[in-house]
Amino acid sequence: MKKKERILNAMHELLLKGHAGTASVQDIANQAGIAKGGLYYYFESKESVLDALVEREYAKIISTCRSAIEAHKDIDALSQLKLLLFTYRNSTVDAALDSFLHHTDNAAIHQKSLAYILTTLSPIVSGIIQHGVDQNVFQCEYPEEYANILLSVLVFSLDAGIFSLTMEIVIMRLKALAHLLECGLCSPVGSFSFLYDGWTKLRLSDLQEP
Amino acid sequence: MKKKERILNAMHELLLKGHAGTASVQDIANQAGIAKGGLYYYFESKESVLDALVEREYAKIISTCRSAIEAHKDIDALSQLKLLLFTYRNSTVDAALDSFLHHTDNAAIHQKSLAYILTTLSPIVSGIIQHGVDQNVFQCEYPEEYANILLSVLVFSLDAGIFSLTMEIVIMRLKALAHLLECGLCSPVGSFSFLYDGWTKLRLSDLQEP
Repeated sequence: MKKKERILNAMHELLLKGHAGTASVQDIANQAGIAKGGLYYYFESKESVLDALVEREYAKIISTCRSAIEAHKDIDALSQLKLLLFTYRNSTVDAALDSFLHHTDNAAIHQKSLAYILTTLSPIVSGIIQHGVDQNVFQCEYPEEYANILLSVLVFSLDAGIFSLTMEIVIMRLKALAHLLECGLCSPVGSFSFLYDGWTKLRLSDLQEP
Repeated sequence: MKKKERILNAMHELLLKGHAGTASVQDIANQAGIAKGGLYYYFESKESVLDALVEREYAKIISTCRSAIEAHKDIDALSQLKLLLFTYRNSTVDAALDSFLHHTDNAAIHQKSLAYILTTLSPIVSGIIQHGVDQNVFQCEYPEEYANILLSVLVFSLDAGIFSLTMEIVIMRLKALAHLLECGLCSPVGSFSFLYDGWTKLRLSDLQEP
C-alpha cells in the first residue's frame, strides 16, 4: 500500500477510536508506522490529512453513485434520480467521521465537505435532468442550476449539524422541494414523491441520534 | 453604555484594525476599558464574544429588513420581496467582519451566521409569500418551506467563501431560481426577474474582491 493511503488509513483508525481531535502529527505517523518526516512529505499539517481523508471517503460515495447511474443508463430520468438518492443515502460516511465533522472545531472541514459533495454530485444530477429533457419527460432550460438548487436544499438546509430539525420539518421541506421541482420541470404531480418517501425513511435514524 | 455592549464594540474595533484573530481575552478587555474578570462575567470565551458580535451585526440587518416590510404592508407581495432583497443587499455587514467570517479559522462562526440569517429571514419571507397567497397573487401550500428554499440558495449556494463563483454562474443560478419560483408559485413569467437584475448589480463588487 502506498504511504499516502497508509497515512489516511491511520487517520481514519484514530478517528474511529475517538482520538482524531487530540492526535498530533507524531501520533498519526506512529499509527501509520512511518516517520514524522515521511508524513510531512505528503501533508503539510494534520488538517490537510483530515481534508484528504474526508475527500477520499466522500469520493468513494460519489463513485458508487456514478457507477449506479452508469449501470442504469436506459431507465427513465425519474427512476435514475430515485436510484441516485437511494444510493447516496445508503452509502453515507461512517458515523465516527460524520460526528467528527459536526463538531464545532471542525466546521471548516465540514463546510468543505458540503461544498465537495455539492460540486461532485451536481454534474451527475444535471446529467439526469438533461436525460429527462431528451426523453421529453422534463422541460428545463437550466439543468445545471436545477441540480445545484436541489442539492443545496438537501445538503445544506437538511443538515442536522447546522439547523435544529424535526422529522416534521424535514418532511415538509422535502414536500415543498418536490412540488417546486414538479412545477419547474413540468413533471406530473407526485412524480417526485420519492424525495420525501425515501429520504425520511433513511433519515429518521440520523435525526434520532444525539 | 452597558458593559456587554462595550465589550462587543471593543471586539468590533479590534476586528476593524485586523487584530481579531490574534487578540486575547485580555486585549479585548483592555480595548473595552474593563477588567478581564468583568469580561468573563458576560462571556465565557473570545469565541462567545465573536458569536455575540456576529449575531448583533446581523440582528441589525434583519431588523432593518423587518422595518422596511412593516412600513410597506400594503404593497403587493412581489414588490415586498423586491424591497426585502434590496434592503438586505444594501445593508450587509462591514467588509472587515465579512472577510473575517470567510477565514478558515472562523468557519464555525461563519456557519452559525449563515444559519442565523436563514432562520431569522425565513419568517419574513414566508409572511410575504402568505401575503401573496391572500392577495391571490401566488398559489402556495408551503410558504415557510418555499422561504427556506429561496434563502438556502441565496445564502449558501451563492456564498463566494464556500464556492468558487463567476458572475455568469451567479446569474444563471438566480435565473433558474426565479424560474422555479415563478412555476411553483404560479406567478407570471418574468415576475421574479428582480432576483437576478437586482442581486447581480449589487453582488458584482463582492465577487470582484479577492
